[in-house]
Amino acid sequence: MKRETPPPSPRSSAGSVSRQPGRWQLDRIVAELRTSREETHSIRRDGEARRAPSRDALEAILDGLTEALFPRHYGQSDLDGENIDYFVGNTLSAALDSLSAQIHRGALFVGDELEPGFVHEEAIELTRAFATQLPPVRGLLINDLRAAFVGDPAARNFPEILIGYPGMTAIIHHRLAHLLYQIGARLVARLMSEIAHTRTGIDIHPGARIGSGFFIDHGTGVVIGETAIIGNNVRIYQAVTLGARHFPTDDEGHVIKGDARHPIVEDEVVIYAGATILGRITIGRGSTIGGNVWLTKDVPPNSIVTQATARNTPSGA
Amino acid sequence: MKRETPPPSPRSSAGSVSRQPGRWQLDRIVAELRTSREETHSIRRDGEARRAPSRDALEAILDGLTEALFPRHYGQSDLDGENIDYFVGNTLSAALDSLSAQIHRGALFVGDELEPGFVHEEAIELTRAFATQLPPVRGLLINDLRAAFVGDPAARNFPEILIGYPGMTAIIHHRLAHLLYQIGARLVARLMSEIAHTRTGIDIHPGARIGSGFFIDHGTGVVIGETAIIGNNVRIYQAVTLGARHFPTDDEGHVIKGDARHPIVEDEVVIYAGATILGRITIGRGSTIGGNVWLTKDVPPNSIVTQATARNTPSGA
Amino acid sequence: MKRETPPPSPRSSAGSVSRQPGRWQLDRIVAELRTSREETHSIRRDGEARRAPSRDALEAILDGLTEALFPRHYGQSDLDGENIDYFVGNTLSAALDSLSAQIHRGALFVGDELEPGFVHEEAIELTRAFATQLPPVRGLLINDLRAAFVGDPAARNFPEILIGYPGMTAIIHHRLAHLLYQIGARLVARLMSEIAHTRTGIDIHPGARIGSGFFIDHGTGVVIGETAIIGNNVRIYQAVTLGARHFPTDDEGHVIKGDARHPIVEDEVVIYAGATILGRITIGRGSTIGGNVWLTKDVPPNSIVTQATARNTPSGA
Repeated sequence: MKRETPPPSPRSSAGSVSRQPGRWQLDRIVAELRTSREETHSIRRDGEARRAPSRDALEAILDGLTEALFPRHYGQSDLDGENIDYFVGNTLSAALDSLSAQIHRGALFVGDELEPGFVHEEAIELTRAFATQLPPVRGLLINDLRAAFVGDPAARNFPEILIGYPGMTAIIHHRLAHLLYQIGARLVARLMSEIAHTRTGIDIHPGARIGSGFFIDHGTGVVIGETAIIGNNVRIYQAVTLGARHFPTDDEGHVIKGDARHPIVEDEVVIYAGATILGRITIGRGSTIGGNVWLTKDVPPNSIVTQATARNTPSGA
Repeated sequence: MKRETPPPSPRSSAGSVSRQPGRWQLDRIVAELRTSREETHSIRRDGEARRAPSRDALEAILDGLTEALFPRHYGQSDLDGENIDYFVGNTLSAALDSLSAQIHRGALFVGDELEPGFVHEEAIELTRAFATQLPPVRGLLINDLRAAFVGDPAARNFPEILIGYPGMTAIIHHRLAHLLYQIGARLVARLMSEIAHTRTGIDIHPGARIGSGFFIDHGTGVVIGETAIIGNNVRIYQAVTLGARHFPTDDEGHVIKGDARHPIVEDEVVIYAGATILGRITIGRGSTIGGNVWLTKDVPPNSIVTQATARNTPSGA
Repeated sequence: MKRETPPPSPRSSAGSVSRQPGRWQLDRIVAELRTSREETHSIRRDGEARRAPSRDALEAILDGLTEALFPRHYGQSDLDGENIDYFVGNTLSAALDSLSAQIHRGALFVGDELEPGFVHEEAIELTRAFATQLPPVRGLLINDLRAAFVGDPAARNFPEILIGYPGMTAIIHHRLAHLLYQIGARLVARLMSEIAHTRTGIDIHPGARIGSGFFIDHGTGVVIGETAIIGNNVRIYQAVTLGARHFPTDDEGHVIKGDARHPIVEDEVVIYAGATILGRITIGRGSTIGGNVWLTKDVPPNSIVTQATARNTPSGA
């Protein structure tokens, strides 16, 4: 480590050390960072200011929607029969206003989804379409809640699951993000899915189609890919991957985007911790996939797939 | 995407676009959500307002207790021999006040734990019993800290472990949650364990019994089930599962809650990354379980268990 | 549960129940905690007040540096060609001021890194050395961003990756923490890496050396050890471990700190989900390591390593 004292700044006697001019050579670093941005085209040639969607705003929207769906568990204290609808309406109103603004930002910022000239009025229309689907989404989530209670011997009551379980948080976020993905607000949907990932360790692409009564227990490390299709009453455990095996490329060697490449999991399947299931294969109805299995081929209905046995080498002593 | 402009609202000229009445058809959605709640019985028939425990409050309680236990590392700046006890007492007082309120909420909200008619005075008594155990809990945590220093070649000093290591955060949270679980505040204990899970990726049920000198390295994806029993000086790595294999059901096919169904890990055992250990089996004292092993049978003391060998297929070139 | 009411406090009639004196027997608990701290030497005998680095401050520093590097995606709204440099300079200035203070704290608090008598002026000098490297670090991160776009068929645009992908967040944090590790601010670097771990589920020790064009997809559960060396254009998936196998001990049986003990991964290697690679082995250039493999031996260039096959036992029906 160098030890010599830097030369005193001419103005250092006038101010505190922490305001010393030239301390960080900011001018040079800022200029170099500008050059770096220009080289990578991150400043638009037309100089138009655009705003990326805000992760903070999307977090607040997800929280507001969750409170509106489950006001007794996530909402403010002391809700009763008289005031609960006011809370729900007010919370929903703020969340939807903000959502329409974020959808607008997302469309302008990306520029390659929705049509050119997308305006705020269209974002409002998409948001309205989204809002009308909230009551049926709540119905689906109640089925997910019941599936968790039935599927986990440690679950003693519904509040514990609804407030506490990461699998419940993940499916609430996913069903909202999937709705947005379906109506075309893909950047906002994708960012919401990553908020869920951060909060729960569960990574579900908003494109994944998931049936009724879905339960993820524990959940850390679960990955479910964009084109996965999951039937009804499926239960999966931590660190399960439903991923892609090969990435198809076009004639010029570029990866083709959006191709169907993730598993189809039929009704009533259980997949235990750490199983890695790759490619557009089908796991037949009623099958059980054991822990840590690595699987890349179709499985007929009612199969039981397990990993090759571990060796036990007693060390004596 | 639909493109037609929605019909102008009669009152839209009077306010900004974002306040336009009827924009989200809130009346209809709020009514549908109410119907959905009524169908799922989430509004109590007697109209009594109850409050779910607050996750935010529980996070603040855990932070306050941690600051009181380790004031030089987690607490406010500039604590010295003179002021440190005042900081500890003040922090503890606020945390315990809030904890007793949350225990009260938890008991009322669930309604199926503790006895009927549970009142706030009883929550205070439980909290007092909890508080007296804090000094011995600190002693256990110091042993955990030492186990981390000894067990991790990358650990260079105690502050690094205490402030930085997720395994340390997880065991601090677990030892507090386990105390609450033991005195009967199970919903609060369970929610605290999920806060630890969110913060660290380590999922330990508050019912799990864990001996002295416990160290989890890295930790993401670790799952330790409700009835697991872990001896002294055990070390485990990321993505290890101590889980259940079968879920016993009663005569009517319902899952039996609370049955002993997770592993017993004896003293001085090391379990490497990704091992999945399922069922009420015993891992004998001094054993080593290798990475990615899937294990469902008893292991005698001093065993070394490893996975079947990987294949290496050189691709030529 | 005990049910008797505690004896009324003499002053309880004068205040609310929640302020009741003696409620938590704080005096006794605070004294016991003090004894516990004294036994474990956490109060310095000389009574000197020292301050641990603040995790909150380090989080704000990481956020500020990220905003300065990518102001259009992480920074405030409405940045355009005119105001963007002011935003960058201002954000950078605040982050570097705070960083130098935290480096100073870290050095004093640990006491076993950098030389004795380390003063704030030296922390400023280290911070200045750090700052000059920010533009080249941005260049590396742009290569990482491109690698993510090329490597993930689900990636549709750069903003999605830059704002949303945990692998991108992890590598941004790592390249900053690694710089600090190199200049000797190891405690601050290590704490930053754990902030990244909390935010992404990806655990990269700041000592790890990582080449250009690095992409981690999904990422939850990834662990990369202190002495790992990763070449250019390497892609890894969730739950991959690059860890240590044996911990070398000195003549007295103490673990040797800092020894080279993690894998070397050469250029153009892909490692799929859940692979556990342990020890100072070399994965040769261009190799592919399959999912869930457990690997502890060298692999020649262009190898394809896969796990032993799973068993499929059709259950009839």
